[in-house]
Amino acid sequence: MRIAVIGAGAMGSIYGGHLSLHNEVYLIDTNQTVVDQINEHGLIIQENGSDVTYHPTAAVSTKDLEPMDVIILFVKALFSKAALQSNRHLIGANTYLMTLQNGSGHEDILGEFVPENRIIIGTTEDNGAVLAPGHVRRGGTGKTNIGMLTEDTEDFLPRMKEVLDSCGFQALIHANIQQLIWNKLFTNVSLSAVTGVLQVPMGFIAANEHAWKLTCQLIHEAVAVAHGLGLEADEAEITEKVRLTSVNSPEGITSICADLRAGRKTEVNTISGSVVRASKKCGVPAPTHEMIVELIHAMEER
Amino acid sequence: MRIAVIGAGAMGSIYGGHLSLHNEVYLIDTNQTVVDQINEHGLIIQENGSDVTYHPTAAVSTKDLEPMDVIILFVKALFSKAALQSNRHLIGANTYLMTLQNGSGHEDILGEFVPENRIIIGTTEDNGAVLAPGHVRRGGTGKTNIGMLTEDTEDFLPRMKEVLDSCGFQALIHANIQQLIWNKLFTNVSLSAVTGVLQVPMGFIAANEHAWKLTCQLIHEAVAVAHGLGLEADEAEITEKVRLTSVNSPEGITSICADLRAGRKTEVNTISGSVVRASKKCGVPAPTHEMIVELIHAMEER
Repeated sequence: MRIAVIGAGAMGSIYGGHLSLHNEVYLIDTNQTVVDQINEHGLIIQENGSDVTYHPTAAVSTKDLEPMDVIILFVKALFSKAALQSNRHLIGANTYLMTLQNGSGHEDILGEFVPENRIIIGTTEDNGAVLAPGHVRRGGTGKTNIGMLTEDTEDFLPRMKEVLDSCGFQALIHANIQQLIWNKLFTNVSLSAVTGVLQVPMGFIAANEHAWKLTCQLIHEAVAVAHGLGLEADEAEITEKVRLTSVNSPEGITSICADLRAGRKTEVNTISGSVVRASKKCGVPAPTHEMIVELIHAMEER
Repeated sequence: MRIAVIGAGAMGSIYGGHLSLHNEVYLIDTNQTVVDQINEHGLIIQENGSDVTYHPTAAVSTKDLEPMDVIILFVKALFSKAALQSNRHLIGANTYLMTLQNGSGHEDILGEFVPENRIIIGTTEDNGAVLAPGHVRRGGTGKTNIGMLTEDTEDFLPRMKEVLDSCGFQALIHANIQQLIWNKLFTNVSLSAVTGVLQVPMGFIAANEHAWKLTCQLIHEAVAVAHGLGLEADEAEITEKVRLTSVNSPEGITSICADLRAGRKTEVNTISGSVVRASKKCGVPAPTHEMIVELIHAMEER
């Protein structure tokens, strides 16, 4: 399969590297240093303690390339649109766009580039970290959950699953992928958002009554919106899951918190912002999420 | 008139000092150093560039004192209840309780100690700063607005006005004092609250689109609550006033912002918190204020 992975961060490198075992893979990034490093020395992935070298073709510009079978987007969500625009010529009449990015609602941007039946959305339980340009660590591994917004008219998902599975991933096809994405979203739009605004580690959320009240309010509104979308969501169960996440990783720093601390833009638009957009679509109010989005943007711009 | 002023901060000292010119004034504070300084060397107020010495009687304990004609509360609002409890024996059957503290809703606490027709609420346009123990600066002067929640059955307000006016204040009696208090509240519950949460100077509010959107939402909800209380509030006019406050004092630091920065408790309960309580009373929702209160409390406890 001809695959372009856009974004050579930790996750993009892990997927791009592994998929290059049995596929023609282009790993695309705007960082020339990373691209040169990969093309000259290979992409090095630390796995189970030892370094393994992979050989995807890295590139900054993709002008000379033909359209792909599938493009997997692994840039930070706020760069999704720009990344697809720069690599528009990789999108042919038969190209699928796939995202495993954090948050929800990515299909809105992907839908500007391909028809709905060529969009694959999902989540990944894998994780990793960048060690140096062209050198990443593969951390925990888990399921790669994929699905479509429409019927899979061309039976593409089974092919994609086979490609993923044969390269060391554990792909699972879901009939109701939005449900799965939202299951993961609840923690991000409550605990992660509040740790970001307060600039605190994860343990503070369950330990402080005010932070916890705020977190519960965010869960409450998100559950109502999920119901508005026709999804299942058990508020008590989600609340307890979020509480345990806080209690069990007291020193954990969420990515929103880390991004704000480092003065970087966050992914709040596809995390809390996706609840706000869903709220408007289904007419269920989410005022606390609206406020969190504005607060975090204001913090980004201090 | 026998007057106790509780709280020898900047405002308590300015009112206590001046009122002592023609009245029997007790200036009560929990800080023994301040009390000793005032009793030994007098209370020094810097006015128009020169120091003037006043001689109220300062005290930590008021056990031996008889009930007062009026008690003026100038502690930080979060200590109001404790301050009144410690000085409960100063409250007789004919004692009036008066507050010019920032924020609104102070009558709820005062009402636990005296009947409604013995509560005077209001605002002051005077300001000042503490220079050292027993030494304050009187800054700008303006109106002292006072009023009652009920009919002034004993014609006390005109007497109070005379006492204030004869000691260098400009008292004004208002039939609808809540209206005046809310007029002042709108800026505090929007601009001040947001500068606190974001830890930014006042100029950031009008300059940053997200901070401004949040501020406008807070004004919008507070105006709706004010209408719910039967008060007048013109949203466009208030919004423009708040914008100008931001633009005209770009480097200004609000007290909520300064308190949080210094790791102190804020007065958010009688600022944004008073909008939340009013919202529950009149059934007009104020979800963004609810969230701000929780956020600021969580920040206090980081």
